[in-house]
Amino acid sequence: MNIIDFLHKAKRGPQVILPKDAGLIISETGLNPTWKVIDAGSGSGFLAMILGNIGCKVFTYEIREDFYNIAKQNIKNSGMNNIKIYNKDITKGIKEKKVDLITLDMKGPERAIKNAYLALKPGGFIVVYSMHIEEVLNVLKELRKYNFHINILENIQREWQSFGDATRPKTHLAHTGFLTFARKNKIILTQ
Amino acid sequence: MNIIDFLHKAKRGPQVILPKDAGLIISETGLNPTWKVIDAGSGSGFLAMILGNIGCKVFTYEIREDFYNIAKQNIKNSGMNNIKIYNKDITKGIKEKKVDLITLDMKGPERAIKNAYLALKPGGFIVVYSMHIEEVLNVLKELRKYNFHINILENIQREWQSFGDATRPKTHLAHTGFLTFARKNKIILTQ
Amino acid sequence: MNIIDFLHKAKRGPQVILPKDAGLIISETGLNPTWKVIDAGSGSGFLAMILGNIGCKVFTYEIREDFYNIAKQNIKNSGMNNIKIYNKDITKGIKEKKVDLITLDMKGPERAIKNAYLALKPGGFIVVYSMHIEEVLNVLKELRKYNFHINILENIQREWQSFGDATRPKTHLAHTGFLTFARKNKIILTQ
Amino acid sequence: MNIIDFLHKAKRGPQVILPKDAGLIISETGLNPTWKVIDAGSGSGFLAMILGNIGCKVFTYEIREDFYNIAKQNIKNSGMNNIKIYNKDITKGIKEKKVDLITLDMKGPERAIKNAYLALKPGGFIVVYSMHIEEVLNVLKELRKYNFHINILENIQREWQSFGDATRPKTHLAHTGFLTFARKNKIILTQ
Repeated sequence: MNIIDFLHKAKRGPQVILPKDAGLIISETGLNPTWKVIDAGSGSGFLAMILGNIGCKVFTYEIREDFYNIAKQNIKNSGMNNIKIYNKDITKGIKEKKVDLITLDMKGPERAIKNAYLALKPGGFIVVYSMHIEEVLNVLKELRKYNFHINILENIQREWQSFGDATRPKTHLAHTGFLTFARKNKIILTQ
Repeated sequence: MNIIDFLHKAKRGPQVILPKDAGLIISETGLNPTWKVIDAGSGSGFLAMILGNIGCKVFTYEIREDFYNIAKQNIKNSGMNNIKIYNKDITKGIKEKKVDLITLDMKGPERAIKNAYLALKPGGFIVVYSMHIEEVLNVLKELRKYNFHINILENIQREWQSFGDATRPKTHLAHTGFLTFARKNKIILTQ
Repeated sequence: MNIIDFLHKAKRGPQVILPKDAGLIISETGLNPTWKVIDAGSGSGFLAMILGNIGCKVFTYEIREDFYNIAKQNIKNSGMNNIKIYNKDITKGIKEKKVDLITLDMKGPERAIKNAYLALKPGGFIVVYSMHIEEVLNVLKELRKYNFHINILENIQREWQSFGDATRPKTHLAHTGFLTFARKNKIILTQ
Repeated sequence: MNIIDFLHKAKRGPQVILPKDAGLIISETGLNPTWKVIDAGSGSGFLAMILGNIGCKVFTYEIREDFYNIAKQNIKNSGMNNIKIYNKDITKGIKEKKVDLITLDMKGPERAIKNAYLALKPGGFIVVYSMHIEEVLNVLKELRKYNFHINILENIQREWQSFGDATRPKTHLAHTGFLTFARKNKIILTQ
């Protein structure tokens, strides 16, 4: 089944990422099926499944047991066997090494940056998804302690409607959040 | 090499699609490595390579010989062997069958809709990329003759800049185009 | 009473223009209290009252008797005596001469362009408010027959919300319409 | 001379406010010719002149002597005699009383809020123009100490271009800043 059809029917617990933002993560990082990806928190598992749909190996961390159970069931129903879910707090440690991409959609993502930096390959990416601008500012402060190239994006997506000869942007359009991309520099300058 | 690093160095002939739009095509259609994709025109081959990077089989059509040569060389340099390029006019016919996705970024895309509709699987997608709103209107008129579910999107992407304690949207932000998604309905009602 | 407080309580019949768009009309044309302004259709009289609030003389045309009655009552309640309302079709003729600004928020505004052009001062403005892009294209076609400098704008306004330390754009934001500014050229080249 | 023509020729020192933002200040506050307005800093005097063009009495404060001289000359050239300019620091005190509107486009606007609050009429407005989001957050913190109704807006304006049958948003569009509207409540609750 097409992943978008599957997700329409999947159970939604916490708020889920929109395709426009998931697509940007894929295209801005250059994600491909050979990648090792870490995702925290799992939420309803939607981002893990959208990334897993590309074929890469996904490890998704969720601290809350209720969300973990929703996400686990959704992932099982998707039939994807390249996604591993943990009921764990990512700020306590990341087991995986040489990771290509770490997505953080969680409270206090700045607390996960140090572990994430260490787990990443040179050239690998952290992408932080933030609802509020203060969260962006907090995470920037932490990211700047490490050797990252940083890029902050927001996607303002407009859906147009067209009935016969009457075509216009829909009256309302959605903002969801800010995406902060931090790429671990490949070349570490030695002193 | 990461596809985004590769594309920064690849040769650019005609205008190339931005990652924000390529990402939206991937995430809104649910593209995965098992897909068969058609792309026209190739332009510099960037969209073909971004989609090919996901692992799917891509057939890309380019009518202009000069663009064909640029795209062919770029694809060769990428090392991807899942992309086949034709120096052909897609409006003259599509050889491939049971296609999952057809992307049209070309002049007069409405002329390719009939062939595209026939080549698509039920549930498959056409995505038309248009610079001008008149092109959107023209292609809508043609799409409505067939059994499609239609959705028109534009992504207004803002990049934010942050220096110390001074964070703001960059003064200028890019519009590129409109994306018209047309999904071939799975259930064809008989009368 | 402040006009914005008055308008919150005024009767609304047809859809009314938003302040962001009315403000743009004022600031892009340079409207001031000495101006003579024509407005069609009156709708609920909101734009006429927002412009009248600046102190200029406003003549507002409304073809529909039901809207005319709503607008007339609203204008009366506002206490402004610099607004004159007609229950007339502006496409049938404009009595006023040497007009500084003509705002058109009506069906088929292209039918009013010729009369509007003749009624305008050199350097005066037509501003057409359009919901749909096809209306913009139709009116552009007509405007190009005359000696106008043309500028098309849309305002995408975002309201931000802030509770304590959680500040972000509101989830939904409004599109209302397109504003086409056409300024009658001051210098008419003779051949 | 039309104010917009005048401003095109006026001398520009520091960055000037765009019409879209000035228009929003006018239409969101309900400004009219009877108003008493304070503006700080003057910058090149553009906002003072745009508001003065409506006919209200404007008092504009500029701390820097070089900007004061530019603004003073521009205001003199405009021929408007309803604008008074001071080479003064607004944070040191505001002489005017029962003010309808105070616009702050300056460094550290939070330092002017207390004086501004005291100078305002009940129902009057402060509008703060901020380039950076941190400035918005700082000013919000200060505004919340007083009895204000607060509204934060940003206008993302798109200019469209149209050549023959090719109409589209211009490739680049401008962000300028955030507008924070704070209205002094009319009804002061007593305890």
